[in-house]
Amino acid sequence: MAISDQYRALTFDVGGTIFDWHSTIRDEVAAFAASKSVEVDAAEFANDWRRGLFTDVMPKVRSGELPPMNIDGMHRIVLDTLLEASDFGEVSEQERRELNLAWHRLGAWPDAPAAIERLRNRYTVAVLTILSFSLAVDSSKHAGVQWDAIMSCEFLGHYKPAPEAYEAGVRMLGLEPSQVMMVAAHPGDLAAARNAGLGTAYVPRPGEWGEHDDRDLSTDEAFDVIAQDFPDLATQLGA
Amino acid sequence: MAISDQYRALTFDVGGTIFDWHSTIRDEVAAFAASKSVEVDAAEFANDWRRGLFTDVMPKVRSGELPPMNIDGMHRIVLDTLLEASDFGEVSEQERRELNLAWHRLGAWPDAPAAIERLRNRYTVAVLTILSFSLAVDSSKHAGVQWDAIMSCEFLGHYKPAPEAYEAGVRMLGLEPSQVMMVAAHPGDLAAARNAGLGTAYVPRPGEWGEHDDRDLSTDEAFDVIAQDFPDLATQLGA
Repeated sequence: MAISDQYRALTFDVGGTIFDWHSTIRDEVAAFAASKSVEVDAAEFANDWRRGLFTDVMPKVRSGELPPMNIDGMHRIVLDTLLEASDFGEVSEQERRELNLAWHRLGAWPDAPAAIERLRNRYTVAVLTILSFSLAVDSSKHAGVQWDAIMSCEFLGHYKPAPEAYEAGVRMLGLEPSQVMMVAAHPGDLAAARNAGLGTAYVPRPGEWGEHDDRDLSTDEAFDVIAQDFPDLATQLGA
Repeated sequence: MAISDQYRALTFDVGGTIFDWHSTIRDEVAAFAASKSVEVDAAEFANDWRRGLFTDVMPKVRSGELPPMNIDGMHRIVLDTLLEASDFGEVSEQERRELNLAWHRLGAWPDAPAAIERLRNRYTVAVLTILSFSLAVDSSKHAGVQWDAIMSCEFLGHYKPAPEAYEAGVRMLGLEPSQVMMVAAHPGDLAAARNAGLGTAYVPRPGEWGEHDDRDLSTDEAFDVIAQDFPDLATQLGA
């Protein structure tokens, strides 16, 4: 059976897979630093912000040490911690709020919008993200990425990589797991989706963490599709 | 202050306001009747199906007499009741399931898609519907209506016209009620949105219930915008 006959919908990870968060956050932090006349390593600040979400704050929300909140709330906690340890000096509530909203203005990888358009001719193409709903809505609009639907773990009741998050997303689309393929730049996301019964497509994103990103992006996982980039993904999926 | 400076987002009712459910359901019921060689008043069947949702099944779900389910489940219960009382004779499970999916193939009023495109240049334009998420996603794709976001009461935890439904939609967009305008063809929906603090735009839809629809669509409610049709709405909203 052709792959485009088997799958009705594609669910996309977006943070890193679609959105080039590093460049946007680096540039916004650099601009903010310039406006305050301080010197910071904006690229490192951006990576620490992203890393702090996954290694520090999200685990505390999962464990109950911090109350339930969406990713905007978690980004803000990491930001406050980073500012505390930085040379920024005094940063007002208004400035913090505005800087935290940089995550709502993310740019997309250049090859993403057109490939998604192609894929939408064949599939229902939806977001399935841990990011807040409004973050995904705002950044998609900002970056000119057009989806059939945006789903956030914020309302699915479970966060990836919990299997319930994928199951809830599939159910929300009115489909069975075998009719849905998860697309991501992160093998861990895909392995979890596969365990929940979804198909999997891996699209590595070299440079997700900036110009010094030297992660090994090869995988020996048996994903259904491994694509070089987004045009290749669209071609392999028959779009 | 210009209206386009006050509002950041528009939330749209879709059943009746965007989707011409009557024509689609009438035509699909007529085609199904023809395939079974039976005669039914397909227009009346369509209206009974829609009416049964609001007057019979939804109240029972609200009261707890029926278990929680989304609108697809409720449509199916109404359908089974209507088929029982009809001349259709035996209708298989597969046929019922397929006929129920007619609601996922709704057409849009001809002036809607282009007006929404215009509005999206100025606002975040989102669906806020009692219909199931997948119904809104599927019918939007089928009808070529392109949104920034689709929100269903299915995941907002409350159904319109409960104030919590509007509040949850606004919160999900990361906004305040005063920054959001509800657009609907139904004064009751708008009055409830206004009570929750949202702006309101009324766009009457003569013929929502078919060619014999003679409802009085005038209103003496003080909505923020009253538009003739969708192009007029876009113009009044500065788009």
